[in-house]
Amino acid sequence: MSKIETKLQELGLALPEITKGPPGVRLPFAWVRVRGNRAYISGHAATNPDGSLAGPFGKVGAEVTLEQANQSARLAALASLSSLKQALGDLDRVTAWLRVFGMVNAAPGFKQLPPVINGFSDLIIELYGPEAGTHARSAVGMAELPFGFPVEIEAEVEISS
Amino acid sequence: MSKIETKLQELGLALPEITKGPPGVRLPFAWVRVRGNRAYISGHAATNPDGSLAGPFGKVGAEVTLEQANQSARLAALASLSSLKQALGDLDRVTAWLRVFGMVNAAPGFKQLPPVINGFSDLIIELYGPEAGTHARSAVGMAELPFGFPVEIEAEVEISS
Amino acid sequence: MSKIETKLQELGLALPEITKGPPGVRLPFAWVRVRGNRAYISGHAATNPDGSLAGPFGKVGAEVTLEQANQSARLAALASLSSLKQALGDLDRVTAWLRVFGMVNAAPGFKQLPPVINGFSDLIIELYGPEAGTHARSAVGMAELPFGFPVEIEAEVEISS
Repeated sequence: MSKIETKLQELGLALPEITKGPPGVRLPFAWVRVRGNRAYISGHAATNPDGSLAGPFGKVGAEVTLEQANQSARLAALASLSSLKQALGDLDRVTAWLRVFGMVNAAPGFKQLPPVINGFSDLIIELYGPEAGTHARSAVGMAELPFGFPVEIEAEVEISS
Repeated sequence: MSKIETKLQELGLALPEITKGPPGVRLPFAWVRVRGNRAYISGHAATNPDGSLAGPFGKVGAEVTLEQANQSARLAALASLSSLKQALGDLDRVTAWLRVFGMVNAAPGFKQLPPVINGFSDLIIELYGPEAGTHARSAVGMAELPFGFPVEIEAEVEISS
Repeated sequence: MSKIETKLQELGLALPEITKGPPGVRLPFAWVRVRGNRAYISGHAATNPDGSLAGPFGKVGAEVTLEQANQSARLAALASLSSLKQALGDLDRVTAWLRVFGMVNAAPGFKQLPPVINGFSDLIIELYGPEAGTHARSAVGMAELPFGFPVEIEAEVEISS
């Protein structure tokens, strides 16, 4: 069994199914684009175990609390790992996380963006360890996100080819 | 004649001239940065055939409709291809689209961001086909874009060197 | 002495210490992530010489003027270079700037985003010259930035390995 999946199991976590957009919305792109020793990960949000989009929805600092948004970021990491597994076959093929771009659907005046995106970063570093898991990051506030996601995160990783 | 330009012609499309910023605005960067087997494409917006910025301008969901914004995204793809052609000499040198970051100048509450950016993705996939044209993507809502663009899109592609 | 540091000295500029977040805020990521011939630079803001975050803070076009924001972008370049030096040992190892993503904390209606981010681009091109310093760029308006930064900039560079 892969190291990363063993660690997920130890943490009591399971990968959700691949993200499903809402009915009737066409998403003509790949959740993960693999090329040479790079995988580019599309913006992911929190999902339920069946891959459907998970609430709460709305602006962080208004309808959604910081703690809920941090959990959404953690679930976005799991959704990203699910897409990565489908694309790569094995999550152990990720040799280095490189760039994480964390987007928060921020209510006016909500500036605590890094603690929200820590929900993603902390899980990735816990799973991959400090060498492979460390990444460059921005955590910023967006005007709107699709379908009212509180958090959406895109990333780039190095993979063994 | 290059395959991609032949397809453009079949679709009745022509590449605009290179994007020109408004008079008096200094833009000290490259529209496309080529290095090794990568080309990084700066944020592009819709242009007219002469390369000047094309309206409508304003926030999508208020001054600009979803349909108009989808068309702006399609024109932003043509503007990006024009810059790519200048940088690469031949659009057939693009071997894989990797990452598309689609930015929408969203009016408060406008969440239909993916259908806007589909205007870009659909044209790229139609031109390059599903293998080379597929890309990772985020489609997100910005607070403001330069000069009131409704849509701005940056991207990264793999090229043959 | 390194060429880039000699040029900084000629311009009367000094690198600040490494960026320090505000007390009590955990930032579990790397300011620069180096891998192979790439360095990914996290979002940086303006800092004081001791690495603490530098004001003015707030929205550009409201509490912060365009001129102040341009200076913030220039200081964000210096903060980025300081992180790069720590990660690479020598700033001359940067062989090409590739991608600059310039984020402005824009007040409603503030559209003059490129002149703000020119503060970053101009300094990089002055230091590295037009060949290595040129980059692809987007300059866009965010809803919020951490701690009320007026400007935050992330980037990707090619390095000699």
